[in-house]
Amino acid sequence: MTEVIPHWLSKQADLAPGQTAIEYKDSNSITFSELEQKSRQFARKLAALDIRKGSRVGVLSGNSEAFVVTLHALSYLGAVAVLLNTRLTEAELTHQLKDAHVTLLLASGEAVDRGMSFPVKVYAMEEVEGYGEKEVDLAEEIHLDDPFTIIYTSGTTGFPKGVIHTYGNHWWSAVSSALNLGIDQTDKWLMAMPVFHVSGLSILMKSVIYGMPVFMLEKFDVKEVHQAIMEKDVTIVSVVTVMVQRLLQQLGDRKYPDTFRCMLLGGGPAPKPLLREAQQRNIPVFQSYGLTETSSQIVTLSPKDTLRKVGSAGKPLMPAQLRIVEKDNEGIGEIYVKGPMVTKGYYNNQEANEKAFVNGWLSTGDLGRLDEEGFLYVADRRKDLIISGGENIYPSEIESVLSGMEQIREVGVAGVEDPTWGQVPAAYVVKAHEVSKEEIVTYARNLLAGYKIPKYIHFISELPRNASNKIVRSALEDHKE
Amino acid sequence: MTEVIPHWLSKQADLAPGQTAIEYKDSNSITFSELEQKSRQFARKLAALDIRKGSRVGVLSGNSEAFVVTLHALSYLGAVAVLLNTRLTEAELTHQLKDAHVTLLLASGEAVDRGMSFPVKVYAMEEVEGYGEKEVDLAEEIHLDDPFTIIYTSGTTGFPKGVIHTYGNHWWSAVSSALNLGIDQTDKWLMAMPVFHVSGLSILMKSVIYGMPVFMLEKFDVKEVHQAIMEKDVTIVSVVTVMVQRLLQQLGDRKYPDTFRCMLLGGGPAPKPLLREAQQRNIPVFQSYGLTETSSQIVTLSPKDTLRKVGSAGKPLMPAQLRIVEKDNEGIGEIYVKGPMVTKGYYNNQEANEKAFVNGWLSTGDLGRLDEEGFLYVADRRKDLIISGGENIYPSEIESVLSGMEQIREVGVAGVEDPTWGQVPAAYVVKAHEVSKEEIVTYARNLLAGYKIPKYIHFISELPRNASNKIVRSALEDHKE
Repeated sequence: MTEVIPHWLSKQADLAPGQTAIEYKDSNSITFSELEQKSRQFARKLAALDIRKGSRVGVLSGNSEAFVVTLHALSYLGAVAVLLNTRLTEAELTHQLKDAHVTLLLASGEAVDRGMSFPVKVYAMEEVEGYGEKEVDLAEEIHLDDPFTIIYTSGTTGFPKGVIHTYGNHWWSAVSSALNLGIDQTDKWLMAMPVFHVSGLSILMKSVIYGMPVFMLEKFDVKEVHQAIMEKDVTIVSVVTVMVQRLLQQLGDRKYPDTFRCMLLGGGPAPKPLLREAQQRNIPVFQSYGLTETSSQIVTLSPKDTLRKVGSAGKPLMPAQLRIVEKDNEGIGEIYVKGPMVTKGYYNNQEANEKAFVNGWLSTGDLGRLDEEGFLYVADRRKDLIISGGENIYPSEIESVLSGMEQIREVGVAGVEDPTWGQVPAAYVVKAHEVSKEEIVTYARNLLAGYKIPKYIHFISELPRNASNKIVRSALEDHKE
Repeated sequence: MTEVIPHWLSKQADLAPGQTAIEYKDSNSITFSELEQKSRQFARKLAALDIRKGSRVGVLSGNSEAFVVTLHALSYLGAVAVLLNTRLTEAELTHQLKDAHVTLLLASGEAVDRGMSFPVKVYAMEEVEGYGEKEVDLAEEIHLDDPFTIIYTSGTTGFPKGVIHTYGNHWWSAVSSALNLGIDQTDKWLMAMPVFHVSGLSILMKSVIYGMPVFMLEKFDVKEVHQAIMEKDVTIVSVVTVMVQRLLQQLGDRKYPDTFRCMLLGGGPAPKPLLREAQQRNIPVFQSYGLTETSSQIVTLSPKDTLRKVGSAGKPLMPAQLRIVEKDNEGIGEIYVKGPMVTKGYYNNQEANEKAFVNGWLSTGDLGRLDEEGFLYVADRRKDLIISGGENIYPSEIESVLSGMEQIREVGVAGVEDPTWGQVPAAYVVKAHEVSKEEIVTYARNLLAGYKIPKYIHFISELPRNASNKIVRSALEDHKE
């Protein structure tokens, strides 16, 4: 049975009209009432562009109020927002726009100025602001089974897949987190993650569902985040490992205010020495595990267990289930998850859906084990996945691109440790014809986002392969010549 | 789409095994892990009595650990618990048991000792404890659309109707309350309401969904409740008006601890002088409005609005909607509600369902109005409903019983003010043959619970009726001769 609730932004505007919805570093802010008004107005402008129920609309923007208003405006029209990573190339964006059957792209002025050309009509969000409004019926209710957002994520195959999030997925994710972390009237969540990532988007969803202010930054800046925690009454912040490291450095000998209660750590496994240091310094780090497909964290470790369970991601949240499938001798196997916050499927990708879902369970492709008390230890965030500064990099996607170069016979990509980024991609190339490292990088730059460009290129004579003839990426580094 | 979650008690036993689930006044308590173990064991004993998925099982008991264990045990079997009011007569209970197609009744030893005879086999819960276990598969998951409990409530027609609560109704009720009141790690909810009322049951549901301790009393005792708030770290208590009055008297010049954060007031409109007194004394009274059909409160007023909105029940909770239908000149009309915590229907009562539901909205039968800011003022909890010490008394039910006496031609019942109970029922009788007040009371005593026996009986020559020939109950008192 599809549950129906009032439109959440209209509801918060009624329940808590004067409550701050979003706060900015310049001390400006917007209340739920103002956000509702702006979003409804913008919805009527978008309606004039023929956006309607079921339309798929691309959104390409860094964090900004306009982005938040656009998201809510699309929900008032029943349209689906396809959230695009601003770091992607024209080719990557074009693929996603086509794959998601996007009919119109809304971009920030900055994104428009990059001068890319797209297969759909592009409107600058700032420009639409000046347009006329069309009188249409705006959604008064939300049907939780309806799709709201699509975010592309590369699976282990390297081909990006559009993860559909229903309103219900976002709702249950927010509620699950509340049941785990509690909800306090004084909560203020700092968002330094991009809205086009589920990590950032899920904070906006919590804001409107809880009626909670979000302190929104354009991007992670260690000084700004530090200052917000110290001076702006922030109680919770979402981070990835590299951010924890920098924040601890920035903190030095000082202490965070007592009201700061949660540093929610996602985006990949964290080094144990860092976790121990945070523990010793009374930093309330909550480790977690989640995927785009789970709408945000689905497993979380409370600080009370951090010391006993260093390196664990914790236990699945209240409405979630987790099991390990096809365990090896050490109990490590593939992580399967189930719950109302888990996506019902990938957009327009029957094959991926058939592969990923087994009797209502999602096979994550990640490896992990449970200890005797049921705490999860993730062995590999995904087999071979490279996590660089919080961004997921899929070796097979880079391999697929580089393989397109005629001078390259075959190529394997693996992550190598990096003091700044945690990991960076390295490419191991078997040449077909003469080619230089510079030529390879130049080629890649046209097709891949900067963070995906291999930082190291090694020429080797053959790739290490297993019995099934699959590349053994973990053996690549030892194969260097 | 039916959402599926892990069995909530098993889940809490995994997430918070050592956390207190229920605490008693003798300082005993039971953890979630122990409660799970007992409930699963009891489920296997009940399985030996042939209770299985879909069985409807009556439960007749005052508040006790055995009651809580029985409830969870039934959920492990997928059986539906029909919760019976211990104050009802044999005739009333028999009606409910038959109407709900109950196949077996589980009763406390105390209830068994009352020596009533029922149309189904009765087992004392204590006795079942000694039975053998049957190996059966216990539910590992909860399907939110499945029915869990049935509680009878008299509609305006006076015929009790079985309100079906799905697991989802209870889940959404608990989550809605959390989004309104917040969730704090230190929360402990005092329950002095009977579990067979939705007011008590909903506290148990919150306990298992939040992982929160409940301080459970057998019944409301002003000294025990007072002591628990003062000394037992209780943070929230559910009350009805008469309890607030008594608690304030008991409190005298003292103050509640600062950690005590919510006195959730339901069960009917509260007198304004009382609310003002609570406000002045910094008692955090949250007025609310709810029905058995809404699984607990669906409208709540926060203390911050109490002063501005004295007498209002507040605004509908986050996932709930409310509107006033067929307003009169003063804006008063019938209250309709909608939301995932609202029952999907009455058991085995097509007629009542057709009457009560209009396009997914429940017509409550209650009258009320919204002020210009959307705050609800309930005009009559139900038209003509008598609320006596927190118990709903429906005039038409008493009328229907008394009409069965051959000496009575017709009878009208209405509430009259009473300093102790708020209201008590008074009967206005038109005689057919000679009869004494004592004879009427004796007759009623065999068929009605004690609190429903009219406290006053007046003999009159005819009943006041309106143009449609319906009794005008509000005019009865003026018709006294």
